[in-house]
Amino acid sequence: MTATRLVLAAGTTRTAAIDGLSAAGADSDLLAHTPAADAEIVEYGSPVRAPAVPQSPTGCLTPAVVTRAVRDRVDLPVTAVDAGLAEPTGAPTVTVGARPGDDIRESDPVPTAPGAMTAARQFGEALPDDEILLAETVPGGTTTALGVLRALGEAGAVSSSLPENPIERKREVVAEGLAASALEPGDAADQPRRAVRRMGDPVLAVATGVALGALRSDTAVTLAGGTQMAAVAALLRHAGVEQRLPLSTTSYVADDESADLAATAERFDLDLTVTDPGFGDADHPAMARYAAGEAKEGVGMGGALALADRAGVPMAEVRERVAALAEELTDDSNEDEL
Amino acid sequence: MTATRLVLAAGTTRTAAIDGLSAAGADSDLLAHTPAADAEIVEYGSPVRAPAVPQSPTGCLTPAVVTRAVRDRVDLPVTAVDAGLAEPTGAPTVTVGARPGDDIRESDPVPTAPGAMTAARQFGEALPDDEILLAETVPGGTTTALGVLRALGEAGAVSSSLPENPIERKREVVAEGLAASALEPGDAADQPRRAVRRMGDPVLAVATGVALGALRSDTAVTLAGGTQMAAVAALLRHAGVEQRLPLSTTSYVADDESADLAATAERFDLDLTVTDPGFGDADHPAMARYAAGEAKEGVGMGGALALADRAGVPMAEVRERVAALAEELTDDSNEDEL
Repeated sequence: MTATRLVLAAGTTRTAAIDGLSAAGADSDLLAHTPAADAEIVEYGSPVRAPAVPQSPTGCLTPAVVTRAVRDRVDLPVTAVDAGLAEPTGAPTVTVGARPGDDIRESDPVPTAPGAMTAARQFGEALPDDEILLAETVPGGTTTALGVLRALGEAGAVSSSLPENPIERKREVVAEGLAASALEPGDAADQPRRAVRRMGDPVLAVATGVALGALRSDTAVTLAGGTQMAAVAALLRHAGVEQRLPLSTTSYVADDESADLAATAERFDLDLTVTDPGFGDADHPAMARYAAGEAKEGVGMGGALALADRAGVPMAEVRERVAALAEELTDDSNEDEL
Repeated sequence: MTATRLVLAAGTTRTAAIDGLSAAGADSDLLAHTPAADAEIVEYGSPVRAPAVPQSPTGCLTPAVVTRAVRDRVDLPVTAVDAGLAEPTGAPTVTVGARPGDDIRESDPVPTAPGAMTAARQFGEALPDDEILLAETVPGGTTTALGVLRALGEAGAVSSSLPENPIERKREVVAEGLAASALEPGDAADQPRRAVRRMGDPVLAVATGVALGALRSDTAVTLAGGTQMAAVAALLRHAGVEQRLPLSTTSYVADDESADLAATAERFDLDLTVTDPGFGDADHPAMARYAAGEAKEGVGMGGALALADRAGVPMAEVRERVAALAEELTDDSNEDEL
């Protein structure tokens, strides 16, 4: 018997550098460090090699802080997988051959996707755990998730780390990407590797691979995240996985009308668990931004919250720990500011 | 406040392939997998990507099993550092630029040592922990430890994973290595980088670097191991570290007269903690081999035992857990045998 393990696929896509798509980093220089910093915060409680704590332009702290806060209260071993990191990380990572993804408006943005998916599947199959929470950190990842859904011929929408989802901009980028790959929507139906390679990002490839492997060896898999993890569910369906799958997310994603997660869950046979951390009741700037609709999810936040709930940890205690961590982290990042 | 963290430098040296030096793997094909397998066992409780549980030709299980058994009873987060692994591992690892070490009878066996030591120092300095246990896994590592001691001009001896220490063979190999590097004993005094590069292995480089960095940022460092970690202490002294250092090892190393650890501890100002896991009282083959003088130490075993002791976990409970893990692991490895 082993505890539940958080498996975090951390990587990058140059799609994130397109103006107006992502809030996962205060500026584009720091954006490339975001997944490395997230992995470090989940692992150690603070950045180690990364230069700063990821935050949005308005100062909303990365959801890695929430996941770490839960890890400070509940036994949750974490294994990060290098799913195309662009910067070195002080977090230990498993290597599966993924490289940073290119802008999906290129013709072959993720050439490492098929190989990484295979290596990740072997890794997932070998994991001895009874249960994993599968999570992601990849700035720009909702746009690539939308790209993959379209390549597969699926109609679902995606959420956003911004309070106002720039969904029209995402659709334009996806349309340009499909054209660059000479694909019509649905041309990659039942071809998950092709869909990720042409329209996705390396994190989707790795997460899909880990899930395929884990399911094959009877490890229970909970997709811990929002519409990006729903895109992983879509990839799993197009890979032939038929069993119902749990998706564990935050109330912020579930309440995002632009994303329509309920319809996506219905389409892909997902058992939704929605956890509200009650950040609206917290008188703390780190949480107030979430209550205002920023960030919403990522780095396994929704899955971690559900695990805390299952373990009987009151949300008030989680909020208290988030506030304390946020204080520590913003003090540190001020000190270390360049 | 954070818990104590185990930092495990895992790597290889082709010195291990010299006949008769190491017991850390039943045959030389599997020897290259030993550090990867050890890291996986400490992380997950069983091998993941590695093909087998490391064991000596007589069936003595790797000390990774003991360290993992302690982790099943005491909170001990682990971070493995890739200190020159020769095979892919399913354990997450931090990258510091180390590559597998060559046979010390070559002229420049560890060209990555200086760079890896620097990157490891930066990593160690950034670690937010209050305390780390610093440990190693590298087959053939006592021979490279002896090589480094001689290059530094130190007289100390080293222990062995074999019941009969092939110390004369080690001295011959070291003499050949010094000749190949055109070094006399002591020529690398006060030059730890040079000593490791010419006569050591990448694990010594990484462990020394992590310790230097951690000490610089006031993280307490316990050297968790036997004579290899004592060689790290020697490297730290020759790097100018003056504070007393704790070294936490097993009674099997302390009782090894060929190693004379007490003299080494005296020479390098080490506070010795020796823990006896009482394997002689255990009626189990996995532990009986230790009581007969095999393996003795490694993968942080002595430090983990001391931590269990400090946390009030009775050694009988540790032994019980070692026995259970050993059963699981030998069942699995039989199943998966090629």
